[in-house]
Amino acid sequence: MASIRSWLSIRTGSPFSIANIPFGIISTKASATPRPAVAIGDWALDLAEFSANNGFSGLSTIQPHQAVFSEATLNAFAALGRPVHAAVRKYLQSVFLLDTPFPDVLKNNKSLQNSALLALKDVQMHVPFDIGDYTDFYAGLNHAYNVGVLFRGPSNALQPNYKHLPVGYHGRASSIVVSGTPIRRPRGQILENPAAEKKVPIYSACRKLDIELELAAFVCKSNPLGAPVPIDEAEDAIFGVVLMNDWSARDIQAWEYVPLGPFGAKNFGTSISPWVVLADALMPFMAKGLENENELLPYLKQRSEKNMYDINLKVELATSAGNTTTLSETSSRNLLFSFPQMLAHHSVTGCNMQVGDLLGSGTISGLEAHQRGSMLEQNENGKTAIKLSGGEERKFLEDGDTVVISGACGSDPNALVGFGECSGTILPALKS
Amino acid sequence: MASIRSWLSIRTGSPFSIANIPFGIISTKASATPRPAVAIGDWALDLAEFSANNGFSGLSTIQPHQAVFSEATLNAFAALGRPVHAAVRKYLQSVFLLDTPFPDVLKNNKSLQNSALLALKDVQMHVPFDIGDYTDFYAGLNHAYNVGVLFRGPSNALQPNYKHLPVGYHGRASSIVVSGTPIRRPRGQILENPAAEKKVPIYSACRKLDIELELAAFVCKSNPLGAPVPIDEAEDAIFGVVLMNDWSARDIQAWEYVPLGPFGAKNFGTSISPWVVLADALMPFMAKGLENENELLPYLKQRSEKNMYDINLKVELATSAGNTTTLSETSSRNLLFSFPQMLAHHSVTGCNMQVGDLLGSGTISGLEAHQRGSMLEQNENGKTAIKLSGGEERKFLEDGDTVVISGACGSDPNALVGFGECSGTILPALKS
Repeated sequence: MASIRSWLSIRTGSPFSIANIPFGIISTKASATPRPAVAIGDWALDLAEFSANNGFSGLSTIQPHQAVFSEATLNAFAALGRPVHAAVRKYLQSVFLLDTPFPDVLKNNKSLQNSALLALKDVQMHVPFDIGDYTDFYAGLNHAYNVGVLFRGPSNALQPNYKHLPVGYHGRASSIVVSGTPIRRPRGQILENPAAEKKVPIYSACRKLDIELELAAFVCKSNPLGAPVPIDEAEDAIFGVVLMNDWSARDIQAWEYVPLGPFGAKNFGTSISPWVVLADALMPFMAKGLENENELLPYLKQRSEKNMYDINLKVELATSAGNTTTLSETSSRNLLFSFPQMLAHHSVTGCNMQVGDLLGSGTISGLEAHQRGSMLEQNENGKTAIKLSGGEERKFLEDGDTVVISGACGSDPNALVGFGECSGTILPALKS
Repeated sequence: MASIRSWLSIRTGSPFSIANIPFGIISTKASATPRPAVAIGDWALDLAEFSANNGFSGLSTIQPHQAVFSEATLNAFAALGRPVHAAVRKYLQSVFLLDTPFPDVLKNNKSLQNSALLALKDVQMHVPFDIGDYTDFYAGLNHAYNVGVLFRGPSNALQPNYKHLPVGYHGRASSIVVSGTPIRRPRGQILENPAAEKKVPIYSACRKLDIELELAAFVCKSNPLGAPVPIDEAEDAIFGVVLMNDWSARDIQAWEYVPLGPFGAKNFGTSISPWVVLADALMPFMAKGLENENELLPYLKQRSEKNMYDINLKVELATSAGNTTTLSETSSRNLLFSFPQMLAHHSVTGCNMQVGDLLGSGTISGLEAHQRGSMLEQNENGKTAIKLSGGEERKFLEDGDTVVISGACGSDPNALVGFGECSGTILPALKS
């Protein structure tokens, strides 16, 4: 069924309705050069081609800056700032409207439709930004609590700092990959018997390979070193959001992480969805996040209580035997701190943020078992097995398993603001 | 006194003897474009100018690649690989030899001397690489032990994993600055009374601003995601070494670091010395590092026992009152793991290293009090004061303090392989 609002046939239920207009980087067989595009329905609009053929003739704002659409990443476009992103999105929506005020741009321009509207199934997606630094936060309160209970018991589950600041750590930017990239099961040091008096690790393939359901935000505004970003300006620095799977080797992590945090257990691959949903597209879906009984310090206080995105999130596991199971369904409201709060905290000591930096939310879990965003939480660190369709079960991921995270805002199936998919399949470990 | 070996006057005691030939990125008032150079004596040889004027006419190896000397970073030169770095260094040494086999290149070419040999005092230095990812290790055993004693007592000073793997964490690449850049005292959350039942942080300027004496190595070889670097190949991936001061806000760190490691306490600035001493230049100064009673897993076993650089390191503190005190003198042999071991471990789970990545060693401390590479260790976390010249004393750094790290290999004052300086002056915190 076609959308009621566009001249382009957009199927009902598409994550890329005309209400969305997410940005990504594509290439094709015909042209291997990576370039910006937006997704609409089952199509990608090639912005290099669109721009080169007067597609932006109706939007004077962008005309001096059209070189950004010939770049191989979104960094240059993002650096133009949120008012420009908003104007470009609104203009592209208007181009696709049934009653578009710009019919000659694309609606009545078969030639440009042929060259610039590419079937999504035929385009190759790329990591959309040149990511300078990647930081992963830990703002999923329920996840932090669940993991804390497993490792320290319920009375010490959360550390004293947890509700006062968005706990985070620097991650590895180079190993961020786009959805669909296979993930090699890592090898590393693990401690087979943590209870033994003499702690001697072995070198082994990971036996506790896990997922982490996260959102991640791209930064579109830089600040100089030594000049923190005030909380009231932090929202201007959020370009948009993707889904993220922060693959985790729990056994490697358990041995290595004291006292400086996770390292090799995380840096073998972090998958993100390819289409960046603009912060502007998410504005209608703001909601209150989790309650925090603590008074926050002023540098973290946001004006609006509705500072969290309400995105419906789903994690599915498809086994090589052909069974697909929904592992988790939850909402991104299950966060204690928002991306602007993370950014304000990140820069409070003076850290310089740069356009293209990526901020991960931390694992998002609801309160119930089927809302948990990691297998570790669902199986109580391997004590129980997770039941899958077709009689299969899992403690952690097996070789050949494919994990698919999806997410969307809204209830009108013709106006979804969706993310598409963030997927990855586990390859067996290399021979030692 | 001139060096006996070069036609160029090189003063005795210069860190940049003809035995060294370190690489950096310079700019000048006359030409603001950053470009590669080498340091020799009190001079920088501008490699863009040298290359453009047939300077490399005697070295066929580099001729097809001379575009690397027009780049604004050393990444492209580094990516050519260690055999090329070695050939270029050896050639440049021969160009400066008293009996140079290439007299027409520079020795008898006053015109090129005038345009390409620039007084060091007149050149502006830049961060020498585009640093994709920065990782800081913790391989300074004595430092790790001293800090462990302060926070957990002598019986639990070192974590069980410490001697089995080079503990490390991902750092912030964007806030790495070149020597001479002032460091703004950070503000952030600190817990004034850690012993209190109710732990409520305040927002404050850092009161425990500290230094960390480190080495850091630049990576010159990439590996694909999922393909670890074998230990026998890891040495080929080390381009060269700089001095590093990993400025640390101890009070912010103490509150924030559990459970994911240091974050804002480190990302407000990390200073490095501007001249990268090639790994090849350091080869004559290899020595045994610290003893490790543990049998290492094979992926960390290096063939040679002499796997550590023997660099004499010094930390000086100059106060705004005009007093200069040597805070620490030690050797870089005080490490438990070498850079090749760090790199092998970094990639063991499959992490892809990239040309330009920076690996920090961790704080380097000797056994004695005056050999400790942080103030935290010298003052027992603020319990005692460090005596300075002129009757001053310090627990931690005060505004206006300048810290200068220097280091050099060798004992012949006409053949030093030195690093020059890594310095930084503390600016007062911003008004809240």
